[in-house]
Amino acid sequence: MSEEPPKAIRIGLLGRGTVGGAFAELLAERAGAVEAATGRRPEIAGVLTREGGDFAEILDGSDLIVELMGGTEPAREHVLAALRAGRPVVTANKQLLAQHGEELFEAARESGVELRFEAAVAGVIPIVRVIQESFGVTEITKVFGIVNGTTNFILTEMAASGASYEEALSRAKELGYAEADPTEDVNGADAAAKMAILARLAFHTPVTLDGVSYEGIERIEPEDLAYAKELGLSLKLLGVAERREGGISVRVFPCFLYGGHPLAPVEGPFNAVMVEAPAITEVTMSGPGAGGVQTASAVLGDVVTILSGDTPVHDTREELPIVSDVASSFYLHLEVVDRPGVLARIAQALGDHDVSVKSVVQQGTGDEARLVMVLHECLESRFEQALDAIDALDVLRAPPRAIRVIEEEFV
Amino acid sequence: MSEEPPKAIRIGLLGRGTVGGAFAELLAERAGAVEAATGRRPEIAGVLTREGGDFAEILDGSDLIVELMGGTEPAREHVLAALRAGRPVVTANKQLLAQHGEELFEAARESGVELRFEAAVAGVIPIVRVIQESFGVTEITKVFGIVNGTTNFILTEMAASGASYEEALSRAKELGYAEADPTEDVNGADAAAKMAILARLAFHTPVTLDGVSYEGIERIEPEDLAYAKELGLSLKLLGVAERREGGISVRVFPCFLYGGHPLAPVEGPFNAVMVEAPAITEVTMSGPGAGGVQTASAVLGDVVTILSGDTPVHDTREELPIVSDVASSFYLHLEVVDRPGVLARIAQALGDHDVSVKSVVQQGTGDEARLVMVLHECLESRFEQALDAIDALDVLRAPPRAIRVIEEEFV
Repeated sequence: MSEEPPKAIRIGLLGRGTVGGAFAELLAERAGAVEAATGRRPEIAGVLTREGGDFAEILDGSDLIVELMGGTEPAREHVLAALRAGRPVVTANKQLLAQHGEELFEAARESGVELRFEAAVAGVIPIVRVIQESFGVTEITKVFGIVNGTTNFILTEMAASGASYEEALSRAKELGYAEADPTEDVNGADAAAKMAILARLAFHTPVTLDGVSYEGIERIEPEDLAYAKELGLSLKLLGVAERREGGISVRVFPCFLYGGHPLAPVEGPFNAVMVEAPAITEVTMSGPGAGGVQTASAVLGDVVTILSGDTPVHDTREELPIVSDVASSFYLHLEVVDRPGVLARIAQALGDHDVSVKSVVQQGTGDEARLVMVLHECLESRFEQALDAIDALDVLRAPPRAIRVIEEEFV
Repeated sequence: MSEEPPKAIRIGLLGRGTVGGAFAELLAERAGAVEAATGRRPEIAGVLTREGGDFAEILDGSDLIVELMGGTEPAREHVLAALRAGRPVVTANKQLLAQHGEELFEAARESGVELRFEAAVAGVIPIVRVIQESFGVTEITKVFGIVNGTTNFILTEMAASGASYEEALSRAKELGYAEADPTEDVNGADAAAKMAILARLAFHTPVTLDGVSYEGIERIEPEDLAYAKELGLSLKLLGVAERREGGISVRVFPCFLYGGHPLAPVEGPFNAVMVEAPAITEVTMSGPGAGGVQTASAVLGDVVTILSGDTPVHDTREELPIVSDVASSFYLHLEVVDRPGVLARIAQALGDHDVSVKSVVQQGTGDEARLVMVLHECLESRFEQALDAIDALDVLRAPPRAIRVIEEEFV
């Protein structure tokens, strides 16, 4: 009996800019994993760009459409045509969703196909899925957060260096965190579109961009940030969607947050979103707000969900052995006898096992004498051997206390 | 033509302890929302408790089984029987998954039904869904975090008050953050089971509890936390699952983190999990680690996902108007002319509109004269009117700068 290989899944790609290009690359790179997870190998069946490609032909030859062209037209027209032709669609187009969401949802419902758009809001943070699926019947009272990386970078830069708004914006452009024309980012319009989408999903009521009032950060002065610093406050551009007496309120505005607020430590181009509801208290999610590969990754997650159908497969892709001996840095607390030469003998025992000391503090005398050391990273097996050797020296008054240390800075 | 009402979805509930009771309550409360989202009204068809109920009968009368009894037997036997009978299963049972996951996954695959277990790991944080669905084909390199709320509460308490481990544990028991027998929490075994599950999902390779090495917090001394404080470090019980040369490593251990680490600000009974991968950089999720209603909420999310099938419905449940006038607190920066009586006139204008001043600083003289005020919360319309009135006083040298302030402490 011969088994036919499963058919490839044909993806029609609309747009091949930064995100479109990154998506095509990521898809090729992860094709094996997609096949393991879904049983079908993905392939790009056609690409529509400004320079070429025929939409009708691409649609005809595709099982699924990925829209990454941006803007409302002709994206709207193409997505509607695809949904009406029974093709599931994945899009990263926040303006399209914020302005024409209901029309698209209606078309998806009528055809019984999926429309997914995780990448439209908050970069790699899977806030769309979490609100729609994890909290789909939760009575959400508030969704809010930092949903624009450009402005968060600018505010972080102003706070850290005392730079003016203009200086910080130039720096953002230099580093690729702001586009050549940053208007929609800095005036709050980009965040407003994202908040319209989140409010729509959280409150199950139509919300379009027109319903969102927004302010940007163009008028923030270094003096405002100096004031914030003095009082231990952070200044963030917040998007807030919340239930209010009589309805909902959806807004974007710069705002001072006290230091202990979960959003206060979110810096640079990162995004973060909080969801509040009586049944969950609050959940906070943070991560990079943009970037070609990050956005492409969110798109791919949606594609795979569509291909997987409704059952997580718990597939085993490889048998990975457990590695038990890994490298760690340690803090080591030793209660030692107060005798000359003890430190030297302990240092010798560590050195014998290639464990090197980063810092050491000797404290107390007599029955209070102790050494507190921080060691450089080494294989844990070697550290254990060094500990045994120290134990054998007969200079300890109590068992040693070792605690791992993570010191490296994060991206 | 008469339309038959859609059939109710019959849920068989195994276990009615804290979580089981909270789930039954939440299900009743959110039945309307479940019906709006899935088209079917849920009902509890039968409950199995230690005191009564017949499993075979409950299974026979149910479309879906929710297992909240805990422990490995008879939970394992019942879940297997349900899956084999073609019933989807939702469970919050981490020990069951960590010890018998492969057997259950196999049974689910064979019957083509779903097995979901969001509530088994990290409370309301939807980390299972995010790893399985959003990052299902992402090459995850590391999943780590704080996955036990009891120990995080104890360490937070020790750090804040200088309390001993024993004192902090008593306090945790008093407040309901530790069980009467906290052994599995404080020795790291509970976190180890959760990390086994996360590693299984992240790396698509079988991982059981036996493969996880763990240490607890029983031997931590106030002195270690004093040392951490001195150096600006936090001490957390971390679960770490990561790819390593030759395989993976899955461990639980107490660890010092530098102050800027995303997990450093996670305090009290909260959990937080980070996922790292080249394509996403990192995503951090945090929220309450446990609690009856929070866990029940995670269970309900899974139930709804199973009932929804593969299509988010983007349903409109109500038409909520946009409320445009809401109350806010403001910081107000005014560049004023340097004349006697200016502050009094501005204060009067604010008072006339029922806007009250919380603090005010007068700075500079002449062309540098300015007032920086923080106002108590008031309706924004009233604040706008007050601003207009101030503007009409003809004492401002530049347009006023108003920035909102969020001061309230979080739970």
